[in-house]
Amino acid sequence: MSRSWLVLADGFLTQRNAKTAHGVLRYTQDDVAGVIDREHAGKDLIEILPELGRKAPIVASVSEGIAGGATSLLLGVATPGGWLPGHWRDWVKEAIEAGLEIVNGLHGFLREDEDLVRLAEESGARLWDVRDPPGDIPLFSGKSLEVPQRTVLTVGSDCAVGKMTTALELANAARVKGVEAEFVATGQTGIMIAGRGIAVDRVISDFTSGAAEKVVLESNPSSSVLLVEGQGSLWHPAYSGVTLGLLHGTAPEALVFCHQPNRTQIEEPPFTRLPSLIEMIDTYEHLARFLRPAKVACISISTRGLDEDVGRWASNEIEETTGIPTGDVFHGDAPKLWAALAEHLALDA
Amino acid sequence: MSRSWLVLADGFLTQRNAKTAHGVLRYTQDDVAGVIDREHAGKDLIEILPELGRKAPIVASVSEGIAGGATSLLLGVATPGGWLPGHWRDWVKEAIEAGLEIVNGLHGFLREDEDLVRLAEESGARLWDVRDPPGDIPLFSGKSLEVPQRTVLTVGSDCAVGKMTTALELANAARVKGVEAEFVATGQTGIMIAGRGIAVDRVISDFTSGAAEKVVLESNPSSSVLLVEGQGSLWHPAYSGVTLGLLHGTAPEALVFCHQPNRTQIEEPPFTRLPSLIEMIDTYEHLARFLRPAKVACISISTRGLDEDVGRWASNEIEETTGIPTGDVFHGDAPKLWAALAEHLALDA
Repeated sequence: MSRSWLVLADGFLTQRNAKTAHGVLRYTQDDVAGVIDREHAGKDLIEILPELGRKAPIVASVSEGIAGGATSLLLGVATPGGWLPGHWRDWVKEAIEAGLEIVNGLHGFLREDEDLVRLAEESGARLWDVRDPPGDIPLFSGKSLEVPQRTVLTVGSDCAVGKMTTALELANAARVKGVEAEFVATGQTGIMIAGRGIAVDRVISDFTSGAAEKVVLESNPSSSVLLVEGQGSLWHPAYSGVTLGLLHGTAPEALVFCHQPNRTQIEEPPFTRLPSLIEMIDTYEHLARFLRPAKVACISISTRGLDEDVGRWASNEIEETTGIPTGDVFHGDAPKLWAALAEHLALDA
Repeated sequence: MSRSWLVLADGFLTQRNAKTAHGVLRYTQDDVAGVIDREHAGKDLIEILPELGRKAPIVASVSEGIAGGATSLLLGVATPGGWLPGHWRDWVKEAIEAGLEIVNGLHGFLREDEDLVRLAEESGARLWDVRDPPGDIPLFSGKSLEVPQRTVLTVGSDCAVGKMTTALELANAARVKGVEAEFVATGQTGIMIAGRGIAVDRVISDFTSGAAEKVVLESNPSSSVLLVEGQGSLWHPAYSGVTLGLLHGTAPEALVFCHQPNRTQIEEPPFTRLPSLIEMIDTYEHLARFLRPAKVACISISTRGLDEDVGRWASNEIEETTGIPTGDVFHGDAPKLWAALAEHLALDA
């Protein structure tokens, strides 16, 4: 389907917990009919959040969004209560009654909200709980080892070091070079951007690798390169199992290592210290090897929070230390990293 | 509660898919009132399966089991259809009507079977779906790093190499030496034996480490050593995520490496080749190190399928190659392995 998004971000538009909304606004290839935020209504998104690079009207109501051609209401703000705050619920109802698709990235599921389900049945509106995995995920079988596409996985030192963004930017850079590259989503923001995928962290743990394999097998047969979004980190003890399940389930041929140079420990409890960059890279390659050898072809660093010249210096330092092409996709280095990856995969592009 | 088991194994008593029933019959510290198997009814279990080392009457009906004092009906055979075959269902109903607890290790859940739930509500019988994880599993927090008990995890080269059995045998060997050792269960058979635990492979993947941590935190405060049952293997790509989640979630101080010496590849697709023993041990230690250093204190080999002298030779060879005390708990080496572990932990015992 061809979507036109109405993004519900009222009161949170510029805040960190609107991360999912920001990701979609930055990377969606669908239209954006509008963004609901009463505080900034009447302005354009590009004035408020220029870094997203997206023009879209900021509106004060669902009806304005519908008038602007919206087909889909996006719930992409991690609200403090976890589910829909009071007046959000009224907007969601209004959207359902108008037949809009509701695309929900929250932890709570629309399908468990009887009121909303009933309304949707009446209006024919589609309710899509993006984090809710499909019911038919099989155990890992090894079929991901045999796909015709070249499979690349982004891995990293911690959460929130740019694994999704790197996969998206590399796919864009590849397409600019005429390569049929596909971004493969494994988390809620990525799924909203790609229009499909599985939130592998919501799957029953025995099926983590199976879910990772399924997203690879269900990618577009005409794609030549798959850029799979990684999750977590081997050094984040809460999520390391998901990370390893993805590494084995997708069975990539190459890895892109994502890192924030000024991060020396994981950002959440128990704040474990990160090993050296070379040790982290070796560990990923070591754990991939027995199933399918995969080397880190390039390093994608996130230098947010650093001055640009410090970031540039860090990038050069890392490239020199590791001997692996390094760059910052947030500062225009995606073409460089794609070139390194294409060379590694011996692609013509 | 004090249980007396009635084990439903009709038609499968001597078969491989009765593995859960066999595990419970071998290791439970509860009473066994009887085993239902019409083929061998009238005989004693010790005549049919002497290797389980358990005397118990084999009976032909639930009523005979109840007459023998049963309190709990155990569903521990992986039936070909997955759920209850026709006449099993009648037996389960009969047991529920008589007020017996039903302890279910199957993939399907009793709580989803409306008929049985209604019957249980009438009779007051407890339905326990052993694989069904509790609803209150938190994310990993790091609290498992701070428990007063000494935590030991069994890890291995593949599935079915003796990780549960080793943990059980080491706990028994420790208790013989007067050490308050506790077996901590993470899979359905272990949970039936221990009377509690969480099937970590049935948890939503983001919560794998959290579930592993929870079983450690909920162990008996008076235990001095925890022998945690491991799952899967880092080299089994379907389950490696669960394995790593357990390694990080339990944050052990020492590891026991379990292996079958004549196994050179994993036994399920994609039949990947196993690395050398030393590489496997190094990899587990390497992945534990950043969170809490844990060395392999002893190697537990399973020599089933080998002549006893070949097994003994393999054990000596491995001990010599690795320099790590090695033995076969299936052939009486648990005291030796416990002694090595106690020395490693610098326990007095």
